[in-house]
Amino acid sequence: MLGTWSDGPTKSAIVDFVGRVTTEGPNYVVPEERVAVFDNDGTLWCEKPIYIQLDFIVRRLAEKAAADGSLADQQPYKAAVAGDLQWFGGAITKHYQGNDTDLKVLAGGIMSLHASMTVDDHAALVGKFYAEANHPTLGRPYLNCTYTPMVELLRYLETNGFTCYIVSGGGRDFMRPVTSQIYGIPPERVVGTAQNLKFEGADGHGELLIQPALDVFDDGPEKPVRIWSRIGRRPILSAGNSNGDDEMLHYSGKPGAAAMRLVVLHDDGEREFDYTAGAERILDHADQFGWTVVSMKNDWTTVFGD
Amino acid sequence: MLGTWSDGPTKSAIVDFVGRVTTEGPNYVVPEERVAVFDNDGTLWCEKPIYIQLDFIVRRLAEKAAADGSLADQQPYKAAVAGDLQWFGGAITKHYQGNDTDLKVLAGGIMSLHASMTVDDHAALVGKFYAEANHPTLGRPYLNCTYTPMVELLRYLETNGFTCYIVSGGGRDFMRPVTSQIYGIPPERVVGTAQNLKFEGADGHGELLIQPALDVFDDGPEKPVRIWSRIGRRPILSAGNSNGDDEMLHYSGKPGAAAMRLVVLHDDGEREFDYTAGAERILDHADQFGWTVVSMKNDWTTVFGD
Repeated sequence: MLGTWSDGPTKSAIVDFVGRVTTEGPNYVVPEERVAVFDNDGTLWCEKPIYIQLDFIVRRLAEKAAADGSLADQQPYKAAVAGDLQWFGGAITKHYQGNDTDLKVLAGGIMSLHASMTVDDHAALVGKFYAEANHPTLGRPYLNCTYTPMVELLRYLETNGFTCYIVSGGGRDFMRPVTSQIYGIPPERVVGTAQNLKFEGADGHGELLIQPALDVFDDGPEKPVRIWSRIGRRPILSAGNSNGDDEMLHYSGKPGAAAMRLVVLHDDGEREFDYTAGAERILDHADQFGWTVVSMKNDWTTVFGD
Repeated sequence: MLGTWSDGPTKSAIVDFVGRVTTEGPNYVVPEERVAVFDNDGTLWCEKPIYIQLDFIVRRLAEKAAADGSLADQQPYKAAVAGDLQWFGGAITKHYQGNDTDLKVLAGGIMSLHASMTVDDHAALVGKFYAEANHPTLGRPYLNCTYTPMVELLRYLETNGFTCYIVSGGGRDFMRPVTSQIYGIPPERVVGTAQNLKFEGADGHGELLIQPALDVFDDGPEKPVRIWSRIGRRPILSAGNSNGDDEMLHYSGKPGAAAMRLVVLHDDGEREFDYTAGAERILDHADQFGWTVVSMKNDWTTVFGD
């Protein structure tokens, strides 16, 4: 297993850690406590040049503006119609730099996009997007933009009695329709950002309708909160790649107990992308606390599969 | 299996339903979609004369009033110190009758009880309560106040490929420390009411601190919302006993697809308690929509185990 991981200190650290927590001795962890949590964007699948979910949202915003001409002069519709992806990427980059002005405008547009839709209809819409959409520069469907070595890691951990969860700043219900297929992680193990839902029922049946307000923004310090809320256990392995994962890595492992924190470093401009913007703090902390940095360039023999 | 269920129409309905969804044919359901949700208080364990959690809270409130004399004249501390359980039970009964005045006073007291405590310290406190506390009239520890036939039902469903969740108006973190032991349901499958949590971290470690505010009141129309949030699937079997479970039963089963809704009827004053207060609406709906009413008196050969 881990055949697409190059031999070296990173792979050895993973194998050593898994060996220690699964072997009788001072670091042994019972299987039910072998909880592993993974960020999604930039950790399990590609997040450049824009988040995959943002591509979905831009398409949906443009559709909405096409149906209602009065929107075309307003943000975020204006940028969506013009295909101005820099405006969208900028809104999120600015957030990680402490400026939420554009993100709030974008969030307002996103919140209203699927308002009053049932969660089932929304899942069908998301499924349609994945079936049709391709990555803009990598020349492959989005569903083939997962990192093969990370999917191998999920399987390797499961084989060793771990239970793996996704804990992402991305939309919970944007990921769920495909996580079983692409990661082998079922909907009940997907934690993410979500809008409010409202129950409406009558005559013995009921539906859940999406509401135009945020329930949870699953990023930064909210990630550990949602991990406890959903799982009720402290992870012993966590993996992320951006500052929004820093608190999740901090929360992994009880003081004095064995734990592994992985930070995926995007240093492979040839096979994927080369960037550290938005990862400054988590990389500092990896250095400071001895977390394991995964170099895409050096630690992975391949990045994407077929 | 289901050895403590009397032969008759209720047991037959359960066995027939499970047979239909696990056998190839028009009602077959793949194992991963065999989701079953159970209310806890009054459905899996005894809720009379007061909720078990309320006993815990009353003890904690009295401890707090003993440590701070200025509280002893205020509700809910006054009732806690006096052992006036009727005041507490009344606050909740009134809620189900549409009057939240006392519940708000009670909620304020509850919210502040464990403020700033870590979730781990809270779990230890809850564990201590279960280890010591006995039911006030049944003459048994609270942990032996689970309904044996319902625990058998959990095992029967699991044997048939179902995954069982608790979805309770009770405190998520009040149940989790014991649900594995008494129900075989692990923390990650316990959904319930919860207070806000705050992450605090430094130097590579982090803790979650309880905050004096409500995150989720998992009752009524919020139950389906939390089911979707946590599981991302619609249950095909649900069980409850009070009006607060009505929406959850409405949400179970897609229109036209096989589903089973169980309503536990407390009609056994000899072995348990005999009441329908707070269950008027769900019992009406059971009658109206053909949901299955479980008579504790007639359908169970025993109520409690050892």
